[in-house]
This record gives sequence, C-alpha cells and structure tokens, in this order.
Amino acid sequence: MAKDRGAHNEQACKQVDGEMTRFFELFGKRWTGLIVAVLTEQGAYFADLRRAIPGISERMLSDRLTELATAGLVVREVDAGPPLRVAYRLTDAGKALEPALKELSRWAEKNLPSGGEGCPEQFRG
Amino acid sequence: MAKDRGAHNEQACKQVDGEMTRFFELFGKRWTGLIVAVLTEQGAYFADLRRAIPGISERMLSDRLTELATAGLVVREVDAGPPLRVAYRLTDAGKALEPALKELSRWAEKNLPSGGEGCPEQFRG
Repeated sequence: MAKDRGAHNEQACKQVDGEMTRFFELFGKRWTGLIVAVLTEQGAYFADLRRAIPGISERMLSDRLTELATAGLVVREVDAGPPLRVAYRLTDAGKALEPALKELSRWAEKNLPSGGEGCPEQFRG
Repeated sequence: MAKDRGAHNEQACKQVDGEMTRFFELFGKRWTGLIVAVLTEQGAYFADLRRAIPGISERMLSDRLTELATAGLVVREVDAGPPLRVAYRLTDAGKALEPALKELSRWAEKNLPSGGEGCPEQFRG
C-alpha cells in the first residue's frame, strides 16, 4: 500500500458512485437477488417462489416482491383460477438484469467455493 | 400467466441455483457490494472506505471487511506508518468481479432512476 500513497491522496475524497449505491440499496438486502434470479427463468406463482428459495418466509417474500414492484422490476398478476392465484413476472427492466446475473453466477462458480463460507486466499490450491 | 401453465408445472419444483445463492449470501447484505465497488478503484485505508460510503458505521464496515476477507475477496495489510494504518485491497478473486459490477452499474443507470425508490413501469415516460 505504501507505494500507492500518492494516488491514495486523491482516493481519500472519493465517494462510491450513485448507480452502485442505487443497485445495492435494492439488492443489498437478503433474498431480493434470489427472487429476481428465479423470475429470470419464467414467471412464477407466490407458492413456487417460496419453494424455489429455501428458508424465505412468506412475510419476507411478500415484502421483497412489493419492493421489486415499487422499483419497477416485477409485476403482479391475478390469475382468476380457480384456484385464484397471484403470479409474478419480470418487467423489461427486470429482464435486462439477466446478463449481469449470469456473469455474477459464473464469477461465483469460480470464486466462491460451495460448502461453507469460502476459504481465505492463502489456503487455496 | 395462464398460458404458461404447462411450463409452470415443471417450474414448480425448481430451486434457485447454488451460485446465485452463494453470491447473494455474501452480497445480499447491506454495504458489502459498495465496499467491493470502492476497492475496485484501488486499495484504501479503513478511514477512506468509511468516508467513501456515506452512512456506514465503523462497526458495520469492520464486520463486512472481515466477511469479505473470510470469503477470500479482500486482504488486510498493516502499513507501519507512522501513523500506523490498516489498508484493504481486493484479491484476484475480488478483482474478477469488476466487469460484472460495471454491468450492474450500467443497468442501474438505465433502470433505477435516481432520486427516490424508483417508479412503477406504468408511470414511466
């Protein structure tokens, strides 16, 4: 780090950019990203979403879907049935996230080992 | 949704993939993504990171950096000084996230309007 000190002085006043902040305001919350990831495959009923995401509660799923709808990424549609059911699908804005999610998935495959919390760099093979 | 019902039956048993789950276990927490975004620019001292991310507390920043180090994305280096300071930088695994973060940032620029919570699709221009 010491050799970076000149550049560091400029860095000291910098703030994280607005786009990243807006992105992680929405997605830096538990479950939000997984809900969108499931919906990129296709629209789903509430119960399917709950089943697809192990550990999510009904309340959390409902709150996150409301946030995603408010942000314009998800739409809610009532299927008159019977049985009457509520389906969710991505808007065009939501669908436009798919390439980035695929890239994150590839990154995770390479860089976040499954089974556990990951492993500090010095212990890797 | 009704016309999807055939496909829906297959979907009903699907679970979200392991890579997405691992990614959002780490990044689906407040602040984590922003810390990595700041460090993609260059290494930074603890105080710089705090300044770069408005609203983060010392405790939160410290906890998130520990999680990122455990996951092998960040390394901590002591700069003997004086003054003695602790610097953080991304590992190769952490740096490899940069293209995906740039893509998320471009997506947010287009799809998450600044100033507020975003706007439902039907109200967009």
